[in-house]
Amino acid sequence: MRYSLLAGGKRIRPVLALATAAAIGRDPEEVLPLAAALELIHTYSLIHDDLPAMDDDDLRRGRPTCHKRFGEDVAILAGDGLYAEAFRLVLEEQHGDPVRILAAVAELAAATGVNGMVGGQYIDVQNLAQDVGLRRLHELKTGRLIGASVECTLMLSDGAGSRLAAFRAFAAELGVLFQIVDDILDVTGTDADLGKPHGSDERHGKLTYVSQYGLDGARRLAEESHGKARAALNEAVPGGATELQQITDFIFTRSS
Amino acid sequence: MRYSLLAGGKRIRPVLALATAAAIGRDPEEVLPLAAALELIHTYSLIHDDLPAMDDDDLRRGRPTCHKRFGEDVAILAGDGLYAEAFRLVLEEQHGDPVRILAAVAELAAATGVNGMVGGQYIDVQNLAQDVGLRRLHELKTGRLIGASVECTLMLSDGAGSRLAAFRAFAAELGVLFQIVDDILDVTGTDADLGKPHGSDERHGKLTYVSQYGLDGARRLAEESHGKARAALNEAVPGGATELQQITDFIFTRSS
Repeated sequence: MRYSLLAGGKRIRPVLALATAAAIGRDPEEVLPLAAALELIHTYSLIHDDLPAMDDDDLRRGRPTCHKRFGEDVAILAGDGLYAEAFRLVLEEQHGDPVRILAAVAELAAATGVNGMVGGQYIDVQNLAQDVGLRRLHELKTGRLIGASVECTLMLSDGAGSRLAAFRAFAAELGVLFQIVDDILDVTGTDADLGKPHGSDERHGKLTYVSQYGLDGARRLAEESHGKARAALNEAVPGGATELQQITDFIFTRSS
Repeated sequence: MRYSLLAGGKRIRPVLALATAAAIGRDPEEVLPLAAALELIHTYSLIHDDLPAMDDDDLRRGRPTCHKRFGEDVAILAGDGLYAEAFRLVLEEQHGDPVRILAAVAELAAATGVNGMVGGQYIDVQNLAQDVGLRRLHELKTGRLIGASVECTLMLSDGAGSRLAAFRAFAAELGVLFQIVDDILDVTGTDADLGKPHGSDERHGKLTYVSQYGLDGARRLAEESHGKARAALNEAVPGGATELQQITDFIFTRSS
């Protein structure tokens, strides 16, 4: 669990939670348990995704994947354990109105269940992406947890008010942007930058934004998505939320 | 998820939750979401335990195991999905005092994390049972979730009061009893009764109550444990709790 959790990574989900708290005038420290839980859950999903029965990847963040280092049995349990500890952490440590905490953790569970991350992964391994469409696949597989990073933070406080819809649109678009750029980087990125071999989508015969729209088409879609995310954010927090703007730009321009 | 969840089984954990509610004078229907969540979690643990990288079992409840029927990737995800949906279910559907629900679900997470089920499973796959002892292994691997079936039900209401310690002792002993009988049945049970090949502990070279104390020794331990569980229950609910008595007797005398 430590090996995979503390291997680095972009920490986009927890940073999003902290920046969202700041954007609505809360102390980011208030949502640290939620932020940590998001990263534990993300790490669990990477460990299980990398398993031989799933994507069968040997490298992650420049190091052997969890199952390569500790064996498949331990890797399955490390993922299971991280997921359990994520819930324990946020349920035990998150301060705030109990009704709001219940709602936020329920969203965390929903975002990672069959109508979220696990459902998306199922579509992926069963090669059903053609049937449901790329957008729906990624909305489930990565979008909902990225969205939950913003949404659960808002649910924990009453600071969003009437801007909730705009925040939701922002979070959803951010998930789309993240995935388009991910697909582009799998083609254009270097192994060193990515911390894993590039081109793995093509090797796995996966439907991606690049395979569907070509590299230039995917780049145009990323630009559009970036513009939409920035516009939604500006509606949620007119002229403010510097950190959320920076994260949005980083997700667009990142090289890993 | 449906295939494994609806394959039958003894439903001991949800029945324990419902019977515990009845024992403290609550309507069992009040804890149905918790009860269902317990069975979802138990099923998730069976699916992952059966995987080729873990116990590599082909049969469960008289049918091919989840990965035999749907493939390893889908089985991993079915387990992950059941665990997520268990939390979603209890967080969204469980009625009651929000502070009590938070505490009960936190216990559910803790009982299934590194200091519970997953930790016990880790000890098991790493063959560390000799180091930590049989009792500690099973306390983690099966005892805490069986205990949580009683404890989380009590946490949801204020009906236990000063009898909480006695209930806890009962629940802990029930977990021990369950495991001793499980180890005995793995030797003495028929494949048809068990719904899986008997003798799998010996084939896997596992430390069990039978391998450690012999069959007669294990039977004596089971009798002792049954007596202790009945005594603790009688302290928690003097002269009452008929259903909990019956479950305790069933766990002792069961043939599957």
